Amino acid sequence: MKIYETRTAPNPRRVRMFLAEKGIDVDYVQVDIQKGENLSAQMRAKNPLGKIPILELDDGTCIAETDAICTYFEALHPSPSLMGETALEKGVISMWQRQVELALMLQVGMCFQHTTGYFKDRMVPVPEYGKEAGINASKYFNILERRLSVTPFIAGDSFSIADITALCAIDFARVVGIRIKDEQENLRRWYDNVSSRESAKA
Amino acid sequence: MKIYETRTAPNPRRVRMFLAEKGIDVDYVQVDIQKGENLSAQMRAKNPLGKIPILELDDGTCIAETDAICTYFEALHPSPSLMGETALEKGVISMWQRQVELALMLQVGMCFQHTTGYFKDRMVPVPEYGKEAGINASKYFNILERRLSVTPFIAGDSFSIADITALCAIDFARVVGIRIKDEQENLRRWYDNVSSRESAKA
Repeated sequence: MKIYETRTAPNPRRVRMFLAEKGIDVDYVQVDIQKGENLSAQMRAKNPLGKIPILELDDGTCIAETDAICTYFEALHPSPSLMGETALEKGVISMWQRQVELALMLQVGMCFQHTTGYFKDRMVPVPEYGKEAGINASKYFNILERRLSVTPFIAGDSFSIADITALCAIDFARVVGIRIKDEQENLRRWYDNVSSRESAKA
Repeated sequence: MKIYETRTAPNPRRVRMFLAEKGIDVDYVQVDIQKGENLSAQMRAKNPLGKIPILELDDGTCIAETDAICTYFEALHPSPSLMGETALEKGVISMWQRQVELALMLQVGMCFQHTTGYFKDRMVPVPEYGKEAGINASKYFNILERRLSVTPFIAGDSFSIADITALCAIDFARVVGIRIKDEQENLRRWYDNVSSRESAKA
């Protein structure tokens, strides 16, 4: 199997960090998204949305979407659990994972795409919307600060996929000038803790 | 347990349809999102993002996010499976579920919110972005048409959560004037088939 990815992009980092936590080695194939290599007919046959990362199995079956790739490996290698073992754990982790994705990672991504024009060859940037997306992302930092004042990790007592998503989103947010504020002490403590994991270098 | 929801909104319908497929009865509490009841301090204590649906368990634990609520019930009541049994099924269904959510449901929702100003008391509508989101949603109808020319259901041979999400998104898309085109015959066949399930009335 192999994973098509772009080393510097935030979503592939989520997959690498997830696999590092589980001790799984996979071959990676680099795709230059700035040059649009992900939009070729060959890549669209693997993922009709033309995005990376994509996991390609040895029989040619492709699984795109970061969360779906992680879901596949969580089922194959359940230990250590990063998506929950009981129904309650699975539900709570899935909620935080989804909210971090939609209210933070996606907002940072939209801010980046719509304010920088990085992909203007393939989409219509709307800077006013990009600015709103950046404001949304900043607001979610406040929600995380409150959450991390009562739990050590985002989904509760244990490290989970939601922490991986949040770390990668927060690191990516620096590109659009959004950073943890001095008064967000719980978020800073969590950030320093999660950043120090060996998997964060993956 | 109970579920806070808004009967007419598309995401709560996804949960009701998912539970109907599994034969699970839950009490529902109606929340008037147009009046902003979802934004009260009481509701934000249940879900910091102030959105519905929210599943509240008898001990007060809350699980927000449609997909997370479904994940919880899939683990509690695995049969009939709607999110896959093997690692490969789970990964492939998760991919399609995620793509239908991000490239269709979310785009329809953004088109609705940014072009109609329905929530302008609580967000800044950017009509130009709403228009782009509608174009993105229409493009995804083409991807579904191609997919459904080779498989009976979106994620493959079996009905899954991705079909529920797509049906609810396509029905919601009529609000912004996006409909299945005459030439999208495979999508129409799938739509008629999935719409005729008893659960579609839930």
